[in-house]
Amino acid sequence: MIYFRSDYSQGAHPKVLEALTKTNYEHTDGYGLDEHCFNAASMIKDLIGVSDCEVHMMIGGTPCNVTVIAASLRPYESVIALKTGHAYFHETGGVEATGHRVIAMEGVNGKLNPEIIDKALEEFEDEHTPLPKMVYISQPTEIGSVYSKAELTAISEKCKEKNLLLYVDGARLGAALTCKANDLSIKELASLVDAFYIGGTKNGALFGEALVIKNKEMNDHFRWMIKRQNGMLAKGRLIGVQFETLLDGGEESIYFEMARHANDLAEKLRVGLGEMGVEFYSDSPTNQIFPVLPTKVVEELEKEFFFYRWAPEKDGMTPIRLVTGWGTEESDVDALMEKVRAIYG
Amino acid sequence: MIYFRSDYSQGAHPKVLEALTKTNYEHTDGYGLDEHCFNAASMIKDLIGVSDCEVHMMIGGTPCNVTVIAASLRPYESVIALKTGHAYFHETGGVEATGHRVIAMEGVNGKLNPEIIDKALEEFEDEHTPLPKMVYISQPTEIGSVYSKAELTAISEKCKEKNLLLYVDGARLGAALTCKANDLSIKELASLVDAFYIGGTKNGALFGEALVIKNKEMNDHFRWMIKRQNGMLAKGRLIGVQFETLLDGGEESIYFEMARHANDLAEKLRVGLGEMGVEFYSDSPTNQIFPVLPTKVVEELEKEFFFYRWAPEKDGMTPIRLVTGWGTEESDVDALMEKVRAIYG
Amino acid sequence: MIYFRSDYSQGAHPKVLEALTKTNYEHTDGYGLDEHCFNAASMIKDLIGVSDCEVHMMIGGTPCNVTVIAASLRPYESVIALKTGHAYFHETGGVEATGHRVIAMEGVNGKLNPEIIDKALEEFEDEHTPLPKMVYISQPTEIGSVYSKAELTAISEKCKEKNLLLYVDGARLGAALTCKANDLSIKELASLVDAFYIGGTKNGALFGEALVIKNKEMNDHFRWMIKRQNGMLAKGRLIGVQFETLLDGGEESIYFEMARHANDLAEKLRVGLGEMGVEFYSDSPTNQIFPVLPTKVVEELEKEFFFYRWAPEKDGMTPIRLVTGWGTEESDVDALMEKVRAIYG
Amino acid sequence: MIYFRSDYSQGAHPKVLEALTKTNYEHTDGYGLDEHCFNAASMIKDLIGVSDCEVHMMIGGTPCNVTVIAASLRPYESVIALKTGHAYFHETGGVEATGHRVIAMEGVNGKLNPEIIDKALEEFEDEHTPLPKMVYISQPTEIGSVYSKAELTAISEKCKEKNLLLYVDGARLGAALTCKANDLSIKELASLVDAFYIGGTKNGALFGEALVIKNKEMNDHFRWMIKRQNGMLAKGRLIGVQFETLLDGGEESIYFEMARHANDLAEKLRVGLGEMGVEFYSDSPTNQIFPVLPTKVVEELEKEFFFYRWAPEKDGMTPIRLVTGWGTEESDVDALMEKVRAIYG
Repeated sequence: MIYFRSDYSQGAHPKVLEALTKTNYEHTDGYGLDEHCFNAASMIKDLIGVSDCEVHMMIGGTPCNVTVIAASLRPYESVIALKTGHAYFHETGGVEATGHRVIAMEGVNGKLNPEIIDKALEEFEDEHTPLPKMVYISQPTEIGSVYSKAELTAISEKCKEKNLLLYVDGARLGAALTCKANDLSIKELASLVDAFYIGGTKNGALFGEALVIKNKEMNDHFRWMIKRQNGMLAKGRLIGVQFETLLDGGEESIYFEMARHANDLAEKLRVGLGEMGVEFYSDSPTNQIFPVLPTKVVEELEKEFFFYRWAPEKDGMTPIRLVTGWGTEESDVDALMEKVRAIYG
Repeated sequence: MIYFRSDYSQGAHPKVLEALTKTNYEHTDGYGLDEHCFNAASMIKDLIGVSDCEVHMMIGGTPCNVTVIAASLRPYESVIALKTGHAYFHETGGVEATGHRVIAMEGVNGKLNPEIIDKALEEFEDEHTPLPKMVYISQPTEIGSVYSKAELTAISEKCKEKNLLLYVDGARLGAALTCKANDLSIKELASLVDAFYIGGTKNGALFGEALVIKNKEMNDHFRWMIKRQNGMLAKGRLIGVQFETLLDGGEESIYFEMARHANDLAEKLRVGLGEMGVEFYSDSPTNQIFPVLPTKVVEELEKEFFFYRWAPEKDGMTPIRLVTGWGTEESDVDALMEKVRAIYG
Repeated sequence: MIYFRSDYSQGAHPKVLEALTKTNYEHTDGYGLDEHCFNAASMIKDLIGVSDCEVHMMIGGTPCNVTVIAASLRPYESVIALKTGHAYFHETGGVEATGHRVIAMEGVNGKLNPEIIDKALEEFEDEHTPLPKMVYISQPTEIGSVYSKAELTAISEKCKEKNLLLYVDGARLGAALTCKANDLSIKELASLVDAFYIGGTKNGALFGEALVIKNKEMNDHFRWMIKRQNGMLAKGRLIGVQFETLLDGGEESIYFEMARHANDLAEKLRVGLGEMGVEFYSDSPTNQIFPVLPTKVVEELEKEFFFYRWAPEKDGMTPIRLVTGWGTEESDVDALMEKVRAIYG
Repeated sequence: MIYFRSDYSQGAHPKVLEALTKTNYEHTDGYGLDEHCFNAASMIKDLIGVSDCEVHMMIGGTPCNVTVIAASLRPYESVIALKTGHAYFHETGGVEATGHRVIAMEGVNGKLNPEIIDKALEEFEDEHTPLPKMVYISQPTEIGSVYSKAELTAISEKCKEKNLLLYVDGARLGAALTCKANDLSIKELASLVDAFYIGGTKNGALFGEALVIKNKEMNDHFRWMIKRQNGMLAKGRLIGVQFETLLDGGEESIYFEMARHANDLAEKLRVGLGEMGVEFYSDSPTNQIFPVLPTKVVEELEKEFFFYRWAPEKDGMTPIRLVTGWGTEESDVDALMEKVRAIYG
């Protein structure tokens, strides 16, 4: 079985394991208060060009999202997101578990924009409704699209105008930063938001995300919040060691290299399938693509490949999700295209 | 600096890292739905002699405690614990974050007993008080003591009589099971409780705890709860792989070997310090001991050793906590004793 | 200023005040455990034709909704409602404050139906999404429409098929029961749902709603939940006394008389405005109507009448909400129609 | 049966009912945004000598306590209270339902003091514990004692020193203000705290408490919080009308008159029983007294009088609670004393 199911189906880049092995016998203080975490934080501040911020080594994406939201909002406040947003759609109500509503809006190609924000604000305006206070988006989005510099700037300006916090879920941030369509550097992204995270789990770490918080109020007693929300790892250094390794070399690091690799293979798939006349569920330049195939083709593919069906069948066609990762081989991609070609041909 | 600060200051037993490296390139399904987790669960069922239960691979102790409690209680229900209990004292109100009170009682040598349960029930008895529904204890306790078979049986019977659930936090379960004072096997423990966990983090894993739930109602949709409470790991297999390794060989496995090692070194410290006339804050036969030393001795020790002061100074004496772990060397113990002897002498 | 702003802008039916005055010096037990509450509950069981249920005297509609939902759902479960539903739209996230998501769907003329339920179930189906467990609807709806017997039956059957609880917010239940379009008796309604409430606040009580729970599990320790959710009134008897008075005489009681009065005046408005060519935002046969008027007409009306603008202006037209109540006078209605006629004429 | 069970067993002072009747047909805006509420707030500002504060008309004591605490604390923060404190002991975990711990300390004659605050701060000091941020006390306390001016000043200063908010539950504030032992005026009390409430329910209102918040941050968007926590009354004016009536005349109003009446009758009981040699469970100068009587005497009394047993029997003696209220008659008190005398004699 060849996996296109997710970018977290394998372990970690071998250098990550090497680093964990190399540092294994060190004694350090727990809970992320160690030199590896401090060093990784420092490297990240350099990478994003922001010195006046805090970087927290988080255990996963859901803990990041939920903890940031719970730490930032007063009890009656809510967060504006898209229906497809991870914090709304794929976290079993983790945000609501902290007492806050996620206002779920319809997006455009998986993306939110200032008009959608205005619409949400109009609907939730008085003391009988939960007050919108934060905008949550993902870069890239859950359907692989990316916000351009202009788009993120427009959202950022709308947030400032409306006194909303802006938080970016970067579970697959590497994929956005390294895709051909991207015109938004990590420094620019950092300058436009209140907080965001650099995802490790989906780009070659065993686990772990580096959460950057620029906004002082959001960061107040944030470590208390991490602990309260079950997100504090005893051996926190494990995340520090991993990010030290992933980001060693900055934009030349394996973090960027792995993301580029995954994007390139997805691009090969996209172009190849496109040439066969396949259409796509979304316009994605990153490592997740969503070809819409005849259901019988999908059924054939499922015999040799492992992937998700993304949406229900419609008119005999089924959208599927193909994800490439740091460990995907070019031969995997070739095998899939050959198979599709054989069926179509 | 020699560390007696915690049993989670180093990485993992080398065999754990080897296993992670060996399985690194496997593709598996995410979130703990993989063969390693299934296999580890099966090994644990054999070890505890219970086939009709569920075993969940959890990311850490606090997520275990909070998720079990939140999953088991109706909103108006509460949990009886000790003031020293981890779920009360060291989780930043994680339980309260899910809406439940921890009723914090005074214990005896760190232990709860049926009389304490009765007292709690008397105090919280009508519709104006949160109804006690669960008893939370730790084996060994936070001050190193262990429940005997008779003691746990008495608690278990009281819980059945009063329709209370019994949950045991086994963050250091290995230390209890392998200490000389212990007369309670893991099979017996499993037979007496509704749920408990076998701690990995504090006994040679990078992270991870194996949560055993026997009670069907507590286990209903438990995976939804793990996700909701931020405790679901994308690469869940990492925990499965670790427990496969830790428990390979059952009671002859490195899990028991490491715990025994830590206990033995703590015992050496305890006997050695005792012979010098040192008294202890608690009666602990496990890998945490709490000598009460003149504060000036403590200050001297702090120059070469890293440990916690456990309680405020009183009459010139300060209780400290010394913890041994799987990676503690006998020479570390000798060095500390020599130092104390030199000061005392 | 003439009020068409709400049906809770005045105090109570004079008989309610008389009853409160008459019983004022009685000493009773607190918290709703008194003969008046017991008697009112008994009267309600007779009225709805269900003896095997519990009736709780609740302080208001939001406490009813939030407490029922919080008491009925396990933490990971959610409730399906409409975007216009009170529990979603007008309770400042009270449901989310208890940790649960309200899945907000688009309705048809303010009403939910089995297809909408199916759609919600499809979208929230696995362990990464909050599990739908309850359907929340209002009778009449927030835009004045009513569910027919066939419609409620279809929803009820869908709920049984999908193992969902069905709860009906009856804040204005009197208006539904007494409107001309209604074909659903209170006995039939009671037979189709797990729980519902009979609203007092919006039909002539000072405050108070009578919550009927048929489902045994939902009712388990429900009084603990009322207290926990801040809804228990010390002098609970006040609600009992009011419902004794409101419902004295069953379907001939002032409860039905007042609702009929309000409906009749709304009907007069609806017919009168309709004859002038006015169109309506919703199809409402009850005491709330939503004429769509030229904004300049609305501005003129606002000089003499007090009401809500219901939705933003569109093409020069603004939908407003006119509500009649137990205390609305026929002359108020005539005045408004005369004014509109004068402007239009 | 003669009631000494509570001070909320009857309805309201007749003037309250008169005022409700007199204003019954007025149309007002809902949710406490009406002239009666505004006027009552203004009267209260005069009474307490603070113009720069907000006064909210609340539905009951538990909603007051829970909403203030939830509005004031960030998620990881906790409140220091006594084990006997209403917010800990008698609200079914309402505070925990909002995610916060109540740290329950032992008091001295029902009272908290600076040393107890220090002790709580020592125990909850780092990021693994919920950070204490508020002190909750009641005036008078749940066992009838009152804080002196010096005592409240000391607590207030400790709170300022430690950056803690100070909130006073005034469910029976009238009883404290009018008792002979009191040396703390309402103006002084107001000057020493961040927030407090003036209880109506237990002193002659049908229901309702007037919550005073001086602290700007605590008051931010407080009405959103009231609604979110189920505490907003549609006909909010009912509370405004009641407080207008209760406080008409300031310290000469029926509010003070009723409290004095209740205190006087309790004093008569206390002195009378004391002369018979009866001892008391607490030192209470207010309208709740706690005589400790032989259990057989208690049993005899229970045949004619209705009251609570306060604590379990010990050595044949049982503490009971006798509460007098605005409606208690002197003959009730005489009857009870006569009965005790008859049994004792």
